[in-house]
Amino acid sequence: MIRGIGGQILWVDLTKGRIDKKPVDEDLVEKYLLGAGFLSRMLFDMIPLGIDPFSPKNVLGIATGLLTASMFPQSSRHVVAGLSPLTEIWGESHAAGFWGPELKLAGYDAIMFLGASKDPVYLNIENDKVDLLDASHIWGADVFETDDWLREKHGKRTRTLGIGQAGENLVRFAAIMNDRDRASARAGLGAVMGSKNVKAVAVRGTGKIEVADSKNYLKQMDIFFDRMLANPFTKERVKYGTTNLLELMNHIGRLPTYNMKQGVFEKYEKISGETITQHYLVKPRADWNCLQRCGRYTRVKTGPYKYIGGSPEFESQSSLGSRCGNANIESILYTHHLANMYGMDTISLGATISWAMEAWDEGLLTGEDTGGIDLSWGNHETIVKLTEMIALREGFGNILAEGSERAAARIGRGTEEFVMTVKKQEIAGQEPRAQKSMGLAAVTAARGADHLYAFPVLDEAGFDVEIKKRFGNEYLPEIADRLNPKFKGVMVKECEDYMVVIESLGLCKYGTQIPPEFYYEDVAAALRVHNGLNLSKQDLKTIGERIVNLNRLFNVARGVTRKDDSLPDRLTKEPSPVGPPKGQVVELDDMLSEYYEHRGWDVETGIPLPETLKCLGLEKDWKELL
Amino acid sequence: MIRGIGGQILWVDLTKGRIDKKPVDEDLVEKYLLGAGFLSRMLFDMIPLGIDPFSPKNVLGIATGLLTASMFPQSSRHVVAGLSPLTEIWGESHAAGFWGPELKLAGYDAIMFLGASKDPVYLNIENDKVDLLDASHIWGADVFETDDWLREKHGKRTRTLGIGQAGENLVRFAAIMNDRDRASARAGLGAVMGSKNVKAVAVRGTGKIEVADSKNYLKQMDIFFDRMLANPFTKERVKYGTTNLLELMNHIGRLPTYNMKQGVFEKYEKISGETITQHYLVKPRADWNCLQRCGRYTRVKTGPYKYIGGSPEFESQSSLGSRCGNANIESILYTHHLANMYGMDTISLGATISWAMEAWDEGLLTGEDTGGIDLSWGNHETIVKLTEMIALREGFGNILAEGSERAAARIGRGTEEFVMTVKKQEIAGQEPRAQKSMGLAAVTAARGADHLYAFPVLDEAGFDVEIKKRFGNEYLPEIADRLNPKFKGVMVKECEDYMVVIESLGLCKYGTQIPPEFYYEDVAAALRVHNGLNLSKQDLKTIGERIVNLNRLFNVARGVTRKDDSLPDRLTKEPSPVGPPKGQVVELDDMLSEYYEHRGWDVETGIPLPETLKCLGLEKDWKELL
Repeated sequence: MIRGIGGQILWVDLTKGRIDKKPVDEDLVEKYLLGAGFLSRMLFDMIPLGIDPFSPKNVLGIATGLLTASMFPQSSRHVVAGLSPLTEIWGESHAAGFWGPELKLAGYDAIMFLGASKDPVYLNIENDKVDLLDASHIWGADVFETDDWLREKHGKRTRTLGIGQAGENLVRFAAIMNDRDRASARAGLGAVMGSKNVKAVAVRGTGKIEVADSKNYLKQMDIFFDRMLANPFTKERVKYGTTNLLELMNHIGRLPTYNMKQGVFEKYEKISGETITQHYLVKPRADWNCLQRCGRYTRVKTGPYKYIGGSPEFESQSSLGSRCGNANIESILYTHHLANMYGMDTISLGATISWAMEAWDEGLLTGEDTGGIDLSWGNHETIVKLTEMIALREGFGNILAEGSERAAARIGRGTEEFVMTVKKQEIAGQEPRAQKSMGLAAVTAARGADHLYAFPVLDEAGFDVEIKKRFGNEYLPEIADRLNPKFKGVMVKECEDYMVVIESLGLCKYGTQIPPEFYYEDVAAALRVHNGLNLSKQDLKTIGERIVNLNRLFNVARGVTRKDDSLPDRLTKEPSPVGPPKGQVVELDDMLSEYYEHRGWDVETGIPLPETLKCLGLEKDWKELL
Repeated sequence: MIRGIGGQILWVDLTKGRIDKKPVDEDLVEKYLLGAGFLSRMLFDMIPLGIDPFSPKNVLGIATGLLTASMFPQSSRHVVAGLSPLTEIWGESHAAGFWGPELKLAGYDAIMFLGASKDPVYLNIENDKVDLLDASHIWGADVFETDDWLREKHGKRTRTLGIGQAGENLVRFAAIMNDRDRASARAGLGAVMGSKNVKAVAVRGTGKIEVADSKNYLKQMDIFFDRMLANPFTKERVKYGTTNLLELMNHIGRLPTYNMKQGVFEKYEKISGETITQHYLVKPRADWNCLQRCGRYTRVKTGPYKYIGGSPEFESQSSLGSRCGNANIESILYTHHLANMYGMDTISLGATISWAMEAWDEGLLTGEDTGGIDLSWGNHETIVKLTEMIALREGFGNILAEGSERAAARIGRGTEEFVMTVKKQEIAGQEPRAQKSMGLAAVTAARGADHLYAFPVLDEAGFDVEIKKRFGNEYLPEIADRLNPKFKGVMVKECEDYMVVIESLGLCKYGTQIPPEFYYEDVAAALRVHNGLNLSKQDLKTIGERIVNLNRLFNVARGVTRKDDSLPDRLTKEPSPVGPPKGQVVELDDMLSEYYEHRGWDVETGIPLPETLKCLGLEKDWKELL
């Protein structure tokens, strides 16, 4: 029997208004773990081909990991998944917080939303008691108002997850928010929740988690805590979170600036982590069992951008800042706050606005398109204004709410050239001409451009020792050179396999990948003491590979092949104009072929080879697709 | 670092008289463990194609397992392997005793004998000190004399392994003996040792074994001990060893009688375990860390068969008894004693004699062939006489020393029809018409007819619960029915995979397979505390499959295909004439196809499919063979 979990899956049929509880399938866990792997398997089998993401036939899954709510450092996470309205392929997003652990303590490992409700509803969970309740009166409310109302009604200790107006309005990059300002932002799954008429999930869980080996449990976790605390990155994280990555990224020329035309921003100091920390930081804030506390509260005391609340991390900071040529830090902090309030992905938000700004700069967009709004680089009033208009689908915001690729397709006139997406999802804050592995990772990610699917950051800070440990000597020094495309196929493949495992356990990638403090052996040890699962390093690697291949099959079944694994021409053909990567392009083709080869995928088509699927026990899935 | 082992491999180049010590390759251990898996990998790479088994280019490997000398119940075993003189394909045989643990305590996990010595030698190991010494004066001595002499010279606590006259005389079923009466008997590897002019290996080891997790080690082993002691089989084993299997086998009609013409012996009571225990047993005897004590001493006090010493177990008892129609128990005990003394496999010995007896009975052999010896069924004086003549290659014994298949080929006249072999090795004491799984196992075993390669005895005693646990409900009740050929392909495949793992760990199959007290999870736990290896159930299964496939490739490279995986017509075409299996034949073709399918081998040829090899990391080995 698997320990250390809630043990039940909630099946919520919204069409019928029916709720079932079923025990976790232990055989499935041994092959896919929980979290991302669990949803990959379930939704692959459940979501029909050829449907619209907003169809009631789409399934929205929310799952915790095998170690969520454990004492493993930073085990606070849950995952949401479904057919993405943005990419129309595999959609998946993750968030930290306390909501996931609360769900686990209520006795549940996942919630599967099927069908669609006729009227707005929310799911209320109080341990054994689970109800679908009327949400008409909070339909239209923002995320904070919804949280306030639910906690007023069900108790202050209730944890909530839900959507704001963006999700209700089917903004294609709407987020599912939890604990007010934590966001499962990418892939637009907030809009899927909106399409199902589900406003929120309130949870109160006061149960216990029984661990498998109570005798060795605390001992093992103590070791992990000590290692995490001793890691030099931890201290820095507590101080800056991820905000001072902005300085590093600018330094190495990887900071997307002016819609990714370049990788350095001349005014970077104005929006740096140091600036935020000195002038706006209230306090760092930890999610469940977090030691690094990247989360933080900030405050703008006066002026038009006055607020107090959750603070942007590097991605929002760069996306709403340098990417839009915006050096007004208070506007960045405030726009991020608004995005949380409306429930939107700040990466796609900033990237979509920056696309529009470049089109404006090139004269392809005018006031006629925008309803008179000025889209000059760095116009922070416009950024704030558009954020609201997108969430509420007003005016020009209604076009941008479709994401940059669909917006450009609608407007035409050559604006398509400035779209910085992969598979219709906006590329995150990693200018790949300055770090080739990130360029490859963006195209291989199953969920559209996504920096976290592989999170191949080992070359970024020159983790030579870690690289040697993981990949062996043969790949050094090329693999550690972020401008050298060589061996990046190996690295991205291996990182993907490991990362989907981490995402199936509910762990934070900081700590498990960077700083490189924990690896397969450590999570295997945790699974032993916490869950009583005896999975070896090799088992976990195979599980990772199995999940990645199943995600790929999900997409292949929907038409994805090598041709779709591509970057905008800007990144592969236009040499970076300034800074450290000056003259560089992403040599994507070579890296991609190397990646396919390591994956055991056909190099021509990018489709997994039958023998690869056989080794992973996926041959049946493939045959069913044919 | 792997713990719980000696840590060194002894490389003995007999041609050059040179001894090297090399550390154990830990990467190899993670893929093949030690023992049988280790030798499978090493010898696959080292033994050239197209050589004679008696060529100096043959390699004789002797290895202990990863758990040999541990406190795991019954962890006393070592394995010998090389190109077999009997089958001319993969040859491997195992024995219990104290010699293997002693080698381990001397600091060595294996010995690899390369080349051939010009003059007789023996290897003397006293911890660090390892010497090749002159054995001229003991060449020609029997096994007991050799042991006496070595212990006289090197100390009473010295453990010895070696050959008697049969090995020196290249009898094709000569055994390698250890601790006087323990035999690595099958496959004729004693003759390979003889061909290399190596008489013996004397070992004295006084070192320590450091276990990986000393804190949990004893605790874990205590659990295993208690379980083993509580198993109802254990008590019976202490009383009878395996000798009372004879009654069971006769009862279910699986007791080879009259050269396997039938499966019941009308005089079985005269040679039963009960008879031995009542009249001849001196005491049961344990090998290293053995709880069941199948080994025993017996004594015949008077008459021509007077002796005291090691006692036959079921295989010798049936082979030299019912198989030859011999109801004289004292002659059986004595012949077994002689076979130990000369160093011969009692299974091939009895089977070869019984083949000759049937040919005599049919009038195809006469006194002219035998030098006047009467070969009537059950003539025990003849059996005793021929045993000596075979070992010394005298007269008709010189022909029989080639094994029954070569002897029949030489004599011709239709005697070939009575040869009960698979791949030239005599089928052991399991009449397969009474237990279909054993018929399949005999043909799929990599080392010629061999009941222990799969040891698929789960259906024998109706272990329904165990079968359900291992194979799931879908196979019941057919899999548990020993006369039903259905699902036997699954069972034999799974048993083979598990058994090669057990043979790579140095464990006894009683306890790990029957009674079904230990399974993958348990050996995984033992490997953790003893060796510090974190291998999961799935890892171990994959390792088992890898070894079986590599053994198969060894044979495929030497011409083995489906056509060689066959039984004598008697067993597949002639219905069993009497007893419980009356009217039964072995439906080999169907079972074999099912087996190949489960193995991922081509059903037409029996050759592993490329994708199967790829999953096991053996694709390179296959390509090199092509």
